[in-house]
This record gives sequence, structure tokens and C-alpha cells, in this order.
Amino acid sequence: MKLSSVVDSLIEKNESKIVFLIFDGLGGLPMEGEGGTELQVAKKPHLDELAARSICGLLDPLSPGLTPGSGPAHFALFGYDPFEYNIGRGILEAAGIDFPITDRDVLARINYATIDKNGVIVDRRAGRIDTKENERICKKLQENISLPNVEIMVEPVKEHRAVLVIRGDNLHGDIEDTDPQREGYAPLKPRAMNQESEATARLVEDFIKKAQEVLSDEKKANALLLRGFSKHRGYPSMKERYGLNAFSIATYPMYRGITRLLGFTVCTEAATIEDEFKALRENYAKYDFFYLHIKHTDSRGEDGDFDGKVEVIEKVDKLIPRVTSLNPDVLVVTGDHSTPAKLKAHSWHPLPVLLYSQYCRPDAVKQFDEINCIHGGLGRMLTVHLMTVALSNAGRLAKFGA
Amino acid sequence: MKLSSVVDSLIEKNESKIVFLIFDGLGGLPMEGEGGTELQVAKKPHLDELAARSICGLLDPLSPGLTPGSGPAHFALFGYDPFEYNIGRGILEAAGIDFPITDRDVLARINYATIDKNGVIVDRRAGRIDTKENERICKKLQENISLPNVEIMVEPVKEHRAVLVIRGDNLHGDIEDTDPQREGYAPLKPRAMNQESEATARLVEDFIKKAQEVLSDEKKANALLLRGFSKHRGYPSMKERYGLNAFSIATYPMYRGITRLLGFTVCTEAATIEDEFKALRENYAKYDFFYLHIKHTDSRGEDGDFDGKVEVIEKVDKLIPRVTSLNPDVLVVTGDHSTPAKLKAHSWHPLPVLLYSQYCRPDAVKQFDEINCIHGGLGRMLTVHLMTVALSNAGRLAKFGA
Repeated sequence: MKLSSVVDSLIEKNESKIVFLIFDGLGGLPMEGEGGTELQVAKKPHLDELAARSICGLLDPLSPGLTPGSGPAHFALFGYDPFEYNIGRGILEAAGIDFPITDRDVLARINYATIDKNGVIVDRRAGRIDTKENERICKKLQENISLPNVEIMVEPVKEHRAVLVIRGDNLHGDIEDTDPQREGYAPLKPRAMNQESEATARLVEDFIKKAQEVLSDEKKANALLLRGFSKHRGYPSMKERYGLNAFSIATYPMYRGITRLLGFTVCTEAATIEDEFKALRENYAKYDFFYLHIKHTDSRGEDGDFDGKVEVIEKVDKLIPRVTSLNPDVLVVTGDHSTPAKLKAHSWHPLPVLLYSQYCRPDAVKQFDEINCIHGGLGRMLTVHLMTVALSNAGRLAKFGA
Repeated sequence: MKLSSVVDSLIEKNESKIVFLIFDGLGGLPMEGEGGTELQVAKKPHLDELAARSICGLLDPLSPGLTPGSGPAHFALFGYDPFEYNIGRGILEAAGIDFPITDRDVLARINYATIDKNGVIVDRRAGRIDTKENERICKKLQENISLPNVEIMVEPVKEHRAVLVIRGDNLHGDIEDTDPQREGYAPLKPRAMNQESEATARLVEDFIKKAQEVLSDEKKANALLLRGFSKHRGYPSMKERYGLNAFSIATYPMYRGITRLLGFTVCTEAATIEDEFKALRENYAKYDFFYLHIKHTDSRGEDGDFDGKVEVIEKVDKLIPRVTSLNPDVLVVTGDHSTPAKLKAHSWHPLPVLLYSQYCRPDAVKQFDEINCIHGGLGRMLTVHLMTVALSNAGRLAKFGA
């Protein structure tokens, strides 16, 4: 029996509230001359005080040594096996523009490209056309292409990137990329990887043929390359799995998109961190589970901006009383993965977590950072188990077996 | 999706060097009057200094509480699931004599035995004939037996033990032991366990019949018992899985044999520990991954020689600068399993590990032993994950998912 099925079978409902405060890319590394990791250097009295009455630990987002992308790292946070629920690039791209995906959709990422008169790719990014151009071209494709029995949507992302959505019945997404990943070659055919995807692959082929005609008078974006085909398979929602009415607060569209896929109600109004905490308070009565996402710890980490990441942590620390004053039954503070400024990238390092509830078993950890949390009562744990611990602390899980 | 397939799919290449320094049977237990475990008692300033700037932890070779043999413990070290890749006894025995196994080989361990005139086993070890006798008998069998379409090799090991190799096409190794495991019975027939092994089982039966004739004039070794039949299935190599050119340095043939099965280039010239460190330096430019195996910690442990094991640790500690001065990108020091002198045997106890790289996250551990490493940042981890962590620290693993 799968662990997730066991957990789901034990769900009980009550009036408790669970809050997950997620710092993107929270984990760090010591950097020369800084005196520790970003979390060690940051002045964060509220987080430390909270850690002192919480149970702490270290989380491995996927498995020791593996560096996660944002998709799998978030699935794990919500208790969804990140390997089983690995999300296709087409879907993630669509989630990233707040596109309302349905489970009748096959999605793929579009790269606009330039081909020569022989059909050979000479620029895989169409001279990085600007987003306005992209929007014009997407509109032109959408208005001029129709296919029988399906709906076609062409949604701009940024620069040369867009999303193709084919919506209809009995579609399948196991289709090979048409992007040969290098210039000097013609785009590939969209080959079906299995029998059931044959019909959809033919639809894609028709779409490409028609798109080619529509784009023929373009100077730069006179072709398109498709990759990351995926059929959205309709993940079980937080409501279905855990009986939770879940609310998502994020300033970046991708995180709103991922949570929308899991059935969260998504707040689209928060533009700043302060807005996010305000949205939490204003919606607190209406939901059971709250995800509040802080993007800038990751952004500063990716920039290699150690001090900037420290500042974001300190800024959020000052807002912690706005959460604790709500008295959530369970409050979790952690991240989705590490993004050490030293590495300027996501990394494999485990990241600190604290979980407060009146039924947690506080350990000796008094400072919320990567080194102190080693000694926490949660030990080193896979992120996928965190949701189970939170549910139990909220009194929402029955015992297993008699 | 299997974790090992995930890891393999993320491999990236670079110029980094990874060194695994493996003390066989490293983990120990406190022994009365000694003042701690072997590692706690040993004076090892270099290992302690290295631990202080490394991330440390405890490894479970297989799963908590399980005691491993050398085969599975080594597979785990190199990131091969030790349950999936459990190696047959015939293969391990052949690896142990440096025999160059191919994937056309079915192997079995031979025990020479004595039978009476009724064909009943009276001595399962043929009076423990000496190795010279063994060599003479193997040669006699090899020279006097041939079978159609296959090559037969009979390789001496030690005393009454030898290896049978049948090399050919379409051979299968699912064949029951002929050794009844007790005296007073006749040897069993080599029964095929499945349809596809039928033909090979008949070959083995022919071999046994002919061997019986050849051995009929022997006083002691007038019969043979076969067990641990296994077809070598050609494990994916370190090169295939990780893109690593791997080099193996060991003084004992079994460890050379195991690494040869995984595609390591094997150093056959090292007879002493000093030779091993010399071989590391001399071959450092030519490979990406280095396995340096110290046998005597295990041997002294098996002897129950606490002080002798301490001495081996101290001796190797003095040589640590010969590794660190090479500045490997990743340096791992650990063992394959515990062999406490108190138990005179392999044991289930987890064993200390340290991993140094410029991207590791050093913890508070300043002494490299079983007790201090409990507080390390790696926590308690399955050995099979170690290779993943090492690859990430070497910059050789891409992130999983978008």
C-alpha cells in the first residue's frame, strides 16, 4: 500500500487551521567573510523565539543529494510524491502564467524560432523577440487556426516563449519534442510515443502546418518549436486527499499556478510581502490550510546576493507576529529547497524546518538555521512526510490499525 | 520511477575529481577497559581536522539493523541498490580471485568433497586439502573435461574451494545447489529453477558426470559440490551510469573484483597501504573517481584485535595529507560496514562518514567517530544515497524537474 493512500485513508475533519510559511530557496551555505549561512547571519528574533517552542529539523526535498526544481519541491511540501507527480514542462509553463488548466488539456511549451528558405533553423529564439511581439504573434495564430473538435489556445509567456494548449476529449500527451535543440536542422515531426497519443500527434502536426502558413510573412518568428508535451492528468486536490479547503498566497504566478493544480483557492491580489500577510489575515476565517510563499529569498540567492537574502529573511521575521497572532493550530516555517547565495542556484542541501503546535514536542533548538536544526527533534526527514506530521498535529489524522 | 534512474538521468560531466577512502569494517563498539570505540581511542589528528571542515553523519549500509556482506555493502557505496544488485556467490568467489568475468558466464562455487563407495558424502571439505592440491585438481579437471559449444574453466581459490565457470551463448544460471549442506547424503542433481535454465542445467549435469570420472582416482577430493550458481548479468558501469572514469585501488582481490564488475580500471600493483596512496597519486590525472580500500581495519576487527584495529586507523591517519594535498573536489572517508573487535564479525551498526567539498555545509562535528558523527549534518543516511550527495558536491548532477 502506498504511504500516500494510507495517509489519505486516515483523514478526519475538524476546525483546525494549518499555515505553511514557505521561504523559496531558504537553505544556504556559509560564504567567506560573512560569518555563517544567510539564516545564521540574519537577525530574526521572532523566528528564533518560535523555533524555541517548536520542533525543528532538516528536510530533504526529494532524496539526499538531489536538487529539485520548484515543481517537485512544492509537490513534496504538500505531501505529493515528487517523483510520481513530476509535472511536465508544458504544464509548469502554463501554470507560470496563471493559465487555468483543465484535465482535458494537452500542453506544450512553444519557442518561436527563425528558419531559412530551406526550412532549416537559423535562430532557435527568433532573435529573442520582445514580449509585445510575442503577444501579437500568439494572437495572430490563435485567430487564424482552428482544428476540428478541439479548442486551440496560444498563450504568450515572455520574449520568444509561449504555451500551446489543445483542449478536447480523449487527448493524450506522449508526444516527442519538435525542437531538435540545435540550429542547422529542420524542426522535427511531433511523433507519438505510444498508440493512444497517435491522434493527438496528428492534431499537433496539423497545427504546425497551419501555424507555418500563418507565420510565413514574419521576419523573425517564422516558425515554432514545441517541447515538453504533457497531458494534464488532474491531480487529486488537497480537498480530495485531506479534506482541506486550501488557500494560496503568492506574488509569483508559477506558485499560484502549481497550487491551483492542487485545488487551492488562489489569491491573485498580493503584489508585496505585506500584501501577502494581509491576505492571510483577511481570508483566515474562510479556509483550513494556508500557503504563504516568499519569493525573494530564492531570487536573492540566485543573484548571489548574500546580504540581500539576509535582508529578506529579516524583513519577513518582523512580520511573524502577524501569523502567530492568528494562533494557527499548526504553523510550519520552511522552504521548498536551498538556494545558497554562494552557489547562485538551487541546491541539494537539506533545509531547516520548524513546526509549532500545542502538541509538538519542543526540542533544544533555539535558533532557526541550518546548523542548529541538525539537532532538532524531527531529525533529517524527506519533505514529503511534512504534511503528514502537520495533519497529525492538527488532529486531522486517525490512528492506523487497531 | 526508480531513484537510481532519476539520478542517472541527471548526470552532467565536468573535470572534478572524487575520492572515496574506504576503511573496511570501520565502525566499532566500545570494549571493556579500552575507553571507547576503536575510532574514539585512535589518535587521528588528520581525520579529526578533516571532519571539522566536512559534513559528517552515520551510514546504514543496507537498512537499519541489517548486517551486510562485502558485496552488497560495496554496491551501496557506489550508489547501486544493494538489494537489486545482490551479487551471486559464484560471481563473488570469482571476483575474489581477480577472475575476469564476462556476461556470457555462468559461475558456481565448488567445494571439493569426499564420497564413499555408495556415493554418500563423508567429508564436505575433502579433509581441507591444501591449496596446492586444489590447484593440481582444478588443472586436471580443466584439462580432461570439454563440453560442446561452451568453454569450461575450473579456477582454484583456497583449500577445498574453487570456482566453476561455464562460458557460452544463451546460458542461464537459475540452477539449484548440488550441495546438500550435510554429510551422509549423496550430492543433489543440478535442477533448473525455470524453463530457460534447463539447457544449462543439463550442461552442468554432464560436467558433474565427467568430473566424477576424472576425480575417481583421488583419495580425498573424489567429488565436488556446487552452489551459488549465477549468471553474470553485466551491471551498468560507473561510466555508463555516472559518466565517471573510475579507478580502484585495493590490496585484496575480492575488492578489485567487485569494482571490476562495475567497470573500474583496477590497480593490481598495490601490496601495502603505502603502495595504495602512491597509486592514487600516480593515477590521479587519469581518472575522475577513485576508490581506495583499506582492508586491515576489517581483518583486525574479525580477529577481535581492538588495539590492532586502532593501529591501522592511526597508520592511515598519518597518510591523509597524501590525499588532501591532491585537493580532490570531493573527498569521502567512511567504511563499507562495521566490524567491531568486540564482535569479531561484520555487524549492523551504522558507521561514521565525512564528506568534504567546498560546497559541503560543515557541521559542529570535530572528531571523526561513531558518537560524534551522530550530530553531523548528514544525519543518519542509507549508504546508497552517499554517491548522489558526492556527485552533487562535485557539480555533476543537474536539478530534477522544472
